[in-house]
Amino acid sequence: MFKAIVSADTLKDTIDSVGVLVDECKIHLEEDGLAIRAVDPANVGMVDLELDASAFESYEADGGIIGVNLDRLEDIAGMASGDQPIHLELDEETRKLHIQIDGLEYTLALIDPDSIRQEPDIPDLDLPADIVVEGADIDRSVTAADMVSDHIALAVDADAETFVVEAEGDTDDVRLELDRDDLVDLQAGPARSLFSLDYLKDMNKAIPKDAEVTIELGEEFPVKLHFDIAEGQGNVTFMLAPRIQSD
Amino acid sequence: MFKAIVSADTLKDTIDSVGVLVDECKIHLEEDGLAIRAVDPANVGMVDLELDASAFESYEADGGIIGVNLDRLEDIAGMASGDQPIHLELDEETRKLHIQIDGLEYTLALIDPDSIRQEPDIPDLDLPADIVVEGADIDRSVTAADMVSDHIALAVDADAETFVVEAEGDTDDVRLELDRDDLVDLQAGPARSLFSLDYLKDMNKAIPKDAEVTIELGEEFPVKLHFDIAEGQGNVTFMLAPRIQSD
Amino acid sequence: MFKAIVSADTLKDTIDSVGVLVDECKIHLEEDGLAIRAVDPANVGMVDLELDASAFESYEADGGIIGVNLDRLEDIAGMASGDQPIHLELDEETRKLHIQIDGLEYTLALIDPDSIRQEPDIPDLDLPADIVVEGADIDRSVTAADMVSDHIALAVDADAETFVVEAEGDTDDVRLELDRDDLVDLQAGPARSLFSLDYLKDMNKAIPKDAEVTIELGEEFPVKLHFDIAEGQGNVTFMLAPRIQSD
Repeated sequence: MFKAIVSADTLKDTIDSVGVLVDECKIHLEEDGLAIRAVDPANVGMVDLELDASAFESYEADGGIIGVNLDRLEDIAGMASGDQPIHLELDEETRKLHIQIDGLEYTLALIDPDSIRQEPDIPDLDLPADIVVEGADIDRSVTAADMVSDHIALAVDADAETFVVEAEGDTDDVRLELDRDDLVDLQAGPARSLFSLDYLKDMNKAIPKDAEVTIELGEEFPVKLHFDIAEGQGNVTFMLAPRIQSD
Repeated sequence: MFKAIVSADTLKDTIDSVGVLVDECKIHLEEDGLAIRAVDPANVGMVDLELDASAFESYEADGGIIGVNLDRLEDIAGMASGDQPIHLELDEETRKLHIQIDGLEYTLALIDPDSIRQEPDIPDLDLPADIVVEGADIDRSVTAADMVSDHIALAVDADAETFVVEAEGDTDDVRLELDRDDLVDLQAGPARSLFSLDYLKDMNKAIPKDAEVTIELGEEFPVKLHFDIAEGQGNVTFMLAPRIQSD
Repeated sequence: MFKAIVSADTLKDTIDSVGVLVDECKIHLEEDGLAIRAVDPANVGMVDLELDASAFESYEADGGIIGVNLDRLEDIAGMASGDQPIHLELDEETRKLHIQIDGLEYTLALIDPDSIRQEPDIPDLDLPADIVVEGADIDRSVTAADMVSDHIALAVDADAETFVVEAEGDTDDVRLELDRDDLVDLQAGPARSLFSLDYLKDMNKAIPKDAEVTIELGEEFPVKLHFDIAEGQGNVTFMLAPRIQSD
């Protein structure tokens, strides 16, 4: 059993956050909200999303799992705008999701959850550095790094107490250094890891420019990016595996 | 003889309404206004347009016919914006149309009207249902139906007094039901016909979102869509042949 | 030695003015400002640009020459917006240009100036007609001419005291006639030359719509187009060779 009403913006933010990594996913319809975990086909990027029942105008669920085509769901959500309410209701018998937007009813065939790639275990890492930065600065970093390289290094200079982003190209280099004044918060510690820019570009698309993003970083460890959606009633964690540091 | 001044917006609306179906057309330069009728190459969609002399800033004509390339005319009209006046003058001898926009003169070679596909006879149908709906609802219906199918069914539920739009895809379905409160007006009667979405998508492009559109509908009959242009001093009728209902 | 701070808009206007003709250029870092001259590979279009030191927030240079990839520089400048300051500093040893935008540092490898096409000598022509026109009218002329032809004739009717733009296509023609009232200024004289529209379209992209453009024109002579950038603290001259007038 699942029946809910959610604003178009909240549904779109939810879909986008997962859709940048995978085309289809399992959605856990828990009593207290939605939960989605997914990993990309190459096992490099993961997403863990929770959307609390309070993020919905109304929400009733009792613990089922549905499999959903995210592209399709994104197209449908695109028929609504702003805070327009979208009605969702699961038909258990036909395994179809009824989606209503102001008189328009879309009947979406669900995917057998067993046919969807298994959900990842997202490890609890105790990483030495925590950086809280504006989404806009991640966007700047990724855009600039993309001009010169396929990789991007994220680091903390523990002495200078700065967060450092670097990309080295064949001829040109990019470097962004943010100190305590430029950051929302910084828990300095030894941290430097290299990442694939392709993945970070995709994740960046889902990060609101005005979001506060908490980055957990270590030495050649995966990075975790946390940010809120739905005005704090939902949260997203991206995890990205590191590339071997080239020297 | 033909000499007229018309606002850019009015000329563009006129061209668009016909241009979604055909690339070239005959324009009747009647004493009391312009008239255009055209049918697409497959004989499935027709348009009947009238633009009253009062829609022009000035208008003089005495009954000739010119053949026009609509793409070309659209490009030229695109040089003007908003209510900027466009001057049109026919040179009978050279069979060219002189188009002036604020000092810029474009000389458009006309097409021999005899070389243009014959104008259709648009039948007078006495269809059982009349629905008056906002252009925005046609846009919603067509956009949603296009996600799942190549066809769209338009129907009236005479008992429930609703206008119903349906599209059935291989796995997903779309349905829009509008009752009296959602409609501008409804003359209920037995009506259900299936149409090619390609044509309706093209026609939809020419229908202003804020227009009141009168839909005449029957049982496996052509549909007629009527709407005004040029603030009521012009009107357009689209007619679309039905597809055989599959079942 | 070169160290300067310039607003994003001024840097972008500078890059655009040269970038429409060539991909890389030499920049002369004079004590009193920047100077760039370049000619396209076919030797048909030339540009001569001066940007006074007063156009910068701060400016220090002592006469060197650097070679720059303009596409690359345009991408970097695109990271800043409006009047956001861009810091430029030349590292003489590494021959790299350090570009800083709000904490983001881009290190741009320079090109050996000797490997860049030689700078043109832009001849001093004493042309009989001077026309001062708004950039928007050049845009209109070029856009309309492009609908019918690959060439455009620019002329002055010395008797009527008008500036005339003409393009003749296979079937359609375009003509724009601007008299003293439409022009900012006119020094009439016998002038008519035919030009390649491709080049004029590229130059048009760099001309602000609200700029006053001074056109120097003769009989089958090159045309010169002068306009200001950086609120008058910089100026650009385009020169375009004529095509042989076809009759």
